[in-house]
Amino acid sequence: MPGQTKKQTDPDAAAVVGPHDLPSEVDVPGVAPVARNGNRRSASEEARTLVASTTSGTLATLSDDGAPWASLVTFGVMDDGAPVLCLSTLAEHARNLERDRQASLMVADPNHSGEVLAGGRVTLAGRVRRSDEHPDGQSAREAHLEAVPSAAMYADFTDFSFWILEVERVRWVGGYGRMDSASASAYAAAAPDPVEPHALDAVNHLNEDHPDALLTMARAFGEYPDASEARCERADRYGLDLQLETPDGPKATRVSFTERINSPGGLRAATVDLVRRARQALQPA
Amino acid sequence: MPGQTKKQTDPDAAAVVGPHDLPSEVDVPGVAPVARNGNRRSASEEARTLVASTTSGTLATLSDDGAPWASLVTFGVMDDGAPVLCLSTLAEHARNLERDRQASLMVADPNHSGEVLAGGRVTLAGRVRRSDEHPDGQSAREAHLEAVPSAAMYADFTDFSFWILEVERVRWVGGYGRMDSASASAYAAAAPDPVEPHALDAVNHLNEDHPDALLTMARAFGEYPDASEARCERADRYGLDLQLETPDGPKATRVSFTERINSPGGLRAATVDLVRRARQALQPA
Repeated sequence: MPGQTKKQTDPDAAAVVGPHDLPSEVDVPGVAPVARNGNRRSASEEARTLVASTTSGTLATLSDDGAPWASLVTFGVMDDGAPVLCLSTLAEHARNLERDRQASLMVADPNHSGEVLAGGRVTLAGRVRRSDEHPDGQSAREAHLEAVPSAAMYADFTDFSFWILEVERVRWVGGYGRMDSASASAYAAAAPDPVEPHALDAVNHLNEDHPDALLTMARAFGEYPDASEARCERADRYGLDLQLETPDGPKATRVSFTERINSPGGLRAATVDLVRRARQALQPA
Repeated sequence: MPGQTKKQTDPDAAAVVGPHDLPSEVDVPGVAPVARNGNRRSASEEARTLVASTTSGTLATLSDDGAPWASLVTFGVMDDGAPVLCLSTLAEHARNLERDRQASLMVADPNHSGEVLAGGRVTLAGRVRRSDEHPDGQSAREAHLEAVPSAAMYADFTDFSFWILEVERVRWVGGYGRMDSASASAYAAAAPDPVEPHALDAVNHLNEDHPDALLTMARAFGEYPDASEARCERADRYGLDLQLETPDGPKATRVSFTERINSPGGLRAATVDLVRRARQALQPA
């Protein structure tokens, strides 16, 4: 299976595991295991995608007594995925960073609704540099202002500085039973998934208007020829996660697109192609 | 003015300041200063209200190298406002707490939309105790399960423990120019605002259906008899924050209810009473 081949050759490929295969933040019995089959985003791609999908998160810094301090921040993102903050030295988190450059940033999926721990999130940990200490300080400033236009109101005040978080460690959790770490180099090299901004609408559309097409995909390519119902759980540039009803109970599976989607609007054509191939595959010889 | 009297006598009263009166996380020119007049929630009441309004936040702990680690958590709340987490020892944040009990929790207003930094948030910092180290461990467990019913699926697994954050330090930020600290004892003694769950709907209703009533209040009790327009920005158990148009430009003001509201449904009657008194006050003698 392509997913497993990828895992063997790419140490950064996302772990795709059932609830009790690996240590997990939230092991829950009764939650269907995540499908093993099919291509999917690596942990570094998941992390880059999450970070690209919002402009706010929670910063952890060290207070003057060495205790951890959590605070709300806005951020932009450099080309290598490094978050850029704009903070006032009058605020505790900036005073903390002036004293100790260690920090981490937690970013949660802004599009997730429902049970909190079933949603995606990522922690990026490393050390910060002020933009005046960074060779690419001007780009950092621009990255922040592009993501947070309202920062233009205060960014030039003397008490504000831009801070770049140089990412050394990445921990992604996709929900129950979906989690992995990524190396700093893999994170820097990965790209956000271009279809992410449209994925939720696509999933809703497939479930509302095309349940039969989903079932056809599941029977042809999802390894469950006897599935009786199919729902789409997630869509990404590599394929679709499906939740099935089968004679053996609920099952999760994955169907992959022929090729990785490289444009924001490519989800529809790739899905149509997948349905077409599924119908062909199921035709009697 | 009652607000200022309160501030002088109660060190925990919220600072009510314009953007440049005090150090602030986010000083923004052009944002109308917050009104000084009127009774309002103290920082400890703001913090308790925020913490009561959601069941998820971001935990900051210390990694094995002493670096700060931010992670998503769910929580319930004890009677004294102490958050209760339920974490697996397989997850990094729980391993961090086993090693070092220092932690903080950032909770952001789940009802805020629009500009992120204009929304309320609070950081609670202190030390955690596992429920088996805590005299009221059973209550902690119940507080978590009441807030996060799905935790019942995994709470009894041997790798999960309940953790109580004993709050030592509270930092509240209500948005631009609204922020203050609260002592641990004030936080523990304060109560969440009972009208908070209905406040957003009430504000929308007032702005859509009763702009004239808001203007009457502003002219009678808001210290702007020449106001030409009024919008409600926030509602709470003590009164309403109004944003006005006046001959001197946009102004912020505050109108207070006669008595503090003590029931979740009390906002409507208190507002009706305020309008009635405002009309009386404006009647020619």
